Amino acid sequence: LIAARARFVSDRPVFIPPGPTAEVEEGQVFSPKFDADGLITCVVVDATTNELLMVAHMNAAALARTIETGNAWFYRRSRAALWRKGEVSGHVQHVIEIRVDCDQDALLLRVEQTGKGACHTGRRSCFYRSLNLAQPTNGPVALTFVDADRVFDPDKVYGKPTKQ
Amino acid sequence: LIAARARFVSDRPVFIPPGPTAEVEEGQVFSPKFDADGLITCVVVDATTNELLMVAHMNAAALARTIETGNAWFYRRSRAALWRKGEVSGHVQHVIEIRVDCDQDALLLRVEQTGKGACHTGRRSCFYRSLNLAQPTNGPVALTFVDADRVFDPDKVYGKPTKQ
Repeated sequence: LIAARARFVSDRPVFIPPGPTAEVEEGQVFSPKFDADGLITCVVVDATTNELLMVAHMNAAALARTIETGNAWFYRRSRAALWRKGEVSGHVQHVIEIRVDCDQDALLLRVEQTGKGACHTGRRSCFYRSLNLAQPTNGPVALTFVDADRVFDPDKVYGKPTKQ
Repeated sequence: LIAARARFVSDRPVFIPPGPTAEVEEGQVFSPKFDADGLITCVVVDATTNELLMVAHMNAAALARTIETGNAWFYRRSRAALWRKGEVSGHVQHVIEIRVDCDQDALLLRVEQTGKGACHTGRRSCFYRSLNLAQPTNGPVALTFVDADRVFDPDKVYGKPTKQ
């Protein structure tokens, strides 16, 4: 494990701390703004179609590894651990482009999703349910499944139901 | 102010608390998972092109108002206040569809962006800079402006440079 980790410069990632607003918004230096938990939000889309695949978080180490390796790494809050997308499923994400937003507190990852889907439930995208907006808001809001066909069998890919 | 606020059922929004994982992931009831600060991440895309416009956060009240009014409301962390997108610029977002992800801790808003742009800097999208991934990661990462033409003059729209 130590040997494997030593391969990554990203074990001690250093990003430029955010400066004045004008530099953050109009500058040409990447200075990601991590939140109080040391995380930054990542929006992952299919690089060809722009389809939203998933939303996840990175800490500095995950971001550095993603830049180094060209594969998407995230930080899984529920397990407090780095997570290489596809490490179990094999459905890795090849990063085509990373963009940052105006205040540098969110990232866009344009990826090539290998395997058939990004979602651990077996769907292409994690966003397979739509809110029924026609009903009154003083009761529960119903969900409708859309684009929800499974493109792989999660039990076969993951063995048991587990978060990926 | 009281009269205006009283128009909104959303002043006391009630969403179903998340239940067991199987219900959260495969159920037909919307049970958004707000974080420790009471917020949920919202990815806002152009409903026609899928272009990522911005990432913002909602608290329960902002989400309820969005559902009620059909216009996007957010919660601005830097001011600890509700924020109707476009309240200053007039560039409101008409919500075409809201989707929720597998674990119900992120929302996709498919919108019609009125006015020309979503970003307070005058661009169409907040994601107008791309990371230079070719360079080594042990130094600062440079940013390249892409799709960064201003579609409106922020000083004219907002008066003075201010967060929108």
